[in-house]
Amino acid sequence: VKDKIEVGLMGLGVVGGGVENALREKAADIAKQVGAPLVMKRILVRDPFKKRACQAQPYLFTTNPQHILNDPEIDIIVEVIGGESPAYDYIKEAISRGKYVVTANKEVIAKHGFELLNLAAEHNVALLYEASAGGGIPLIGPLGHDLLANKISAIHAIINGTTNYILTKMALEDIDFDTALKEARELGYAEADPASDVDGIDATYKLAILAALAFQTQVLPGDVYHEGISHLAARDFRYAKELGYTIKLLAIAKREDDTFQVRVHPTFIPDDLLLARVDGVFNAVQIDGDLSGRILFYGQGAGALPTSSAILADVIHLARNISQGSSPLPRVRMDQTMTVKPISEIRTRYYLRMTVADRPGVLAQIARVLGDFLISISSVIQKEVDESAQSAEIVIMTHPSQERAMQQAVSQMEKLDVVKEISNLIRVED
Amino acid sequence: VKDKIEVGLMGLGVVGGGVENALREKAADIAKQVGAPLVMKRILVRDPFKKRACQAQPYLFTTNPQHILNDPEIDIIVEVIGGESPAYDYIKEAISRGKYVVTANKEVIAKHGFELLNLAAEHNVALLYEASAGGGIPLIGPLGHDLLANKISAIHAIINGTTNYILTKMALEDIDFDTALKEARELGYAEADPASDVDGIDATYKLAILAALAFQTQVLPGDVYHEGISHLAARDFRYAKELGYTIKLLAIAKREDDTFQVRVHPTFIPDDLLLARVDGVFNAVQIDGDLSGRILFYGQGAGALPTSSAILADVIHLARNISQGSSPLPRVRMDQTMTVKPISEIRTRYYLRMTVADRPGVLAQIARVLGDFLISISSVIQKEVDESAQSAEIVIMTHPSQERAMQQAVSQMEKLDVVKEISNLIRVED
Repeated sequence: VKDKIEVGLMGLGVVGGGVENALREKAADIAKQVGAPLVMKRILVRDPFKKRACQAQPYLFTTNPQHILNDPEIDIIVEVIGGESPAYDYIKEAISRGKYVVTANKEVIAKHGFELLNLAAEHNVALLYEASAGGGIPLIGPLGHDLLANKISAIHAIINGTTNYILTKMALEDIDFDTALKEARELGYAEADPASDVDGIDATYKLAILAALAFQTQVLPGDVYHEGISHLAARDFRYAKELGYTIKLLAIAKREDDTFQVRVHPTFIPDDLLLARVDGVFNAVQIDGDLSGRILFYGQGAGALPTSSAILADVIHLARNISQGSSPLPRVRMDQTMTVKPISEIRTRYYLRMTVADRPGVLAQIARVLGDFLISISSVIQKEVDESAQSAEIVIMTHPSQERAMQQAVSQMEKLDVVKEISNLIRVED
Repeated sequence: VKDKIEVGLMGLGVVGGGVENALREKAADIAKQVGAPLVMKRILVRDPFKKRACQAQPYLFTTNPQHILNDPEIDIIVEVIGGESPAYDYIKEAISRGKYVVTANKEVIAKHGFELLNLAAEHNVALLYEASAGGGIPLIGPLGHDLLANKISAIHAIINGTTNYILTKMALEDIDFDTALKEARELGYAEADPASDVDGIDATYKLAILAALAFQTQVLPGDVYHEGISHLAARDFRYAKELGYTIKLLAIAKREDDTFQVRVHPTFIPDDLLLARVDGVFNAVQIDGDLSGRILFYGQGAGALPTSSAILADVIHLARNISQGSSPLPRVRMDQTMTVKPISEIRTRYYLRMTVADRPGVLAQIARVLGDFLISISSVIQKEVDESAQSAEIVIMTHPSQERAMQQAVSQMEKLDVVKEISNLIRVED
């Protein structure tokens, strides 16, 4: 039982500043929640002389990580540096020295969570990471506690705010990807280098974290198939609307007996699904449990305040435990033996858009290729004839088919004389 | 540290049967989660000879509550009898005898939660009640843990499935309340005596529970203003649609400095709010936190399986704690001194529908009454003239006004010769 809990903060960027600020402004209330005051002992910064929006006291600053990792009085280390290196090394060293760690680092948790959680258990401390996926939306807590009695069959998540903002813009304003990205950049919703968001890598890390918890097995970012959104065109959104769908970058995890599939890609989802109504920078995670049924969590997946909400919840949880003479926290289980299903083996419906020659018999040729690969057509739209180019656009929705067959069919179709371009192939979730 | 955890189940109705079934079928997995097996020791039933859907072993049955309350080997008692009496007495006695208790009983928690939680703390045990509000949706957990760093300013919740089913029907099918209720009854979504749902009493209990957690203060069911849905007419839904709104039975809690308001009533909410898309028997709870921003939790608020999901999460949580040599669980804080704002003092916008004489100057008279009470009009619809009765219908949307003033204005308007009927007054939340 300790009379105060001392905290070391590693990183004082947007999120770190938010955490520092909230800890200071809410000190009295947090002390009540914990039963002892939380004291900010030291803050790791890269440049102590930088002008900052936050009002952290400079006498707390250090540029030497050992001043935090090595301080025997520090109980909890909050890591908000981000990125794999050096954050991974710091977290590992902190745990090895018996520190409790709270992190918002999706990359480190997705890649090294299994090792680090085991290391924490060995050292009788805990590593909490609510802020690593879904920002201010409680997800890690509910998956690890409130939904523990469930066998979770599927997760469908909009888990990246930048791409959801861009897709919402494209859908509402009938604009192309580049224009929407430019607007997102101007508003600060996309970074100067947006690749990690736009290519689906950020979502891949978060999905790996959520799927590991949901299936209680190891899921690595490399297990997750991913595709970005930059190949989407304004016309895809027009067709989606006409067909009763919305296009979202979905992070999908599904359990099938002893295998699971994890994938991130643009997806057609029915308009009447609540997920289809999640717009702008908001995130939402839909979870199907055998007891709970379908549940959805919605909120802000990024930003200094929402991320601080998650980090502080973890800090308060640990601090209570420490101040009351801690018993070991429940271990995150990742002991289920399951294998990843390769993307080529999944079955799903597809939206296929192509430009073809505008002459009789073209659809028959395309339909024959699909038939050869046992892919059956659910609906066809043919219109928008470009008379000068003598071409037409065809949109096909298929019934559930195997991915491998679909990819082979697309290769075959590309070889047809009458097919000028396969413009887009987008998976559908009903 | 115990090698097995013994459970006593009080009540074997729909929910009790679901809990018994899930505990039996998931025994191996739960034992892994807990670190020790959970053993069902005894089940309190009213009629041991009743034919039951569940496959509970009759040798576990007892009709004597003391066989559970008095059994020194029972660690955790799960109360799913429902209703205030005798459940309240059983829970109280169980806690006094040092048992951990899990309950789904909204009435007991709403009315006696403060006393029972204090009693549990005194006896170094815990009383968990995730299933008491929102069924399978994690709410108590997130409010008590994951959102703990937030100052919560408002809750807007669709927290009763029966009424949401009826309202969804009325909106989609343009039918009146009685017809929708009849359909809900036939599908088993409404009870033979639907008063507790339809009059908003069920929602009142749940709101009291959620508001107490959110504001960390005592909230009693008697503090909650409530109005049911039976006075809604199909035409109200038609006007709502025309105005860009949806009508939902909302449970609303708002903090304003040291006061809070808690109320349950039919509410106009904007169509573009995610809450407006929550249809059928589904529930959703929208929470505004100072750090997290707006969060929404969505799922099934009732039913054997979803309720079992919540109960089992609580049971696993307690069983882990007991099996690992328990440290005291964090106490639910209700120590904030706040007063309830009477409904007469709230400010909100209103939808007002009335039948008036179809002659010149009528609107001027009505507008003058509203003006006298400082209520300003935001929009007016006048149509649907009934020529034979020489009457017309007027619908008025107001700007934010004080409830007391609005009620007085309505009384005044009722006295006007030209007003034939004040048909409905519905509050608006934007």
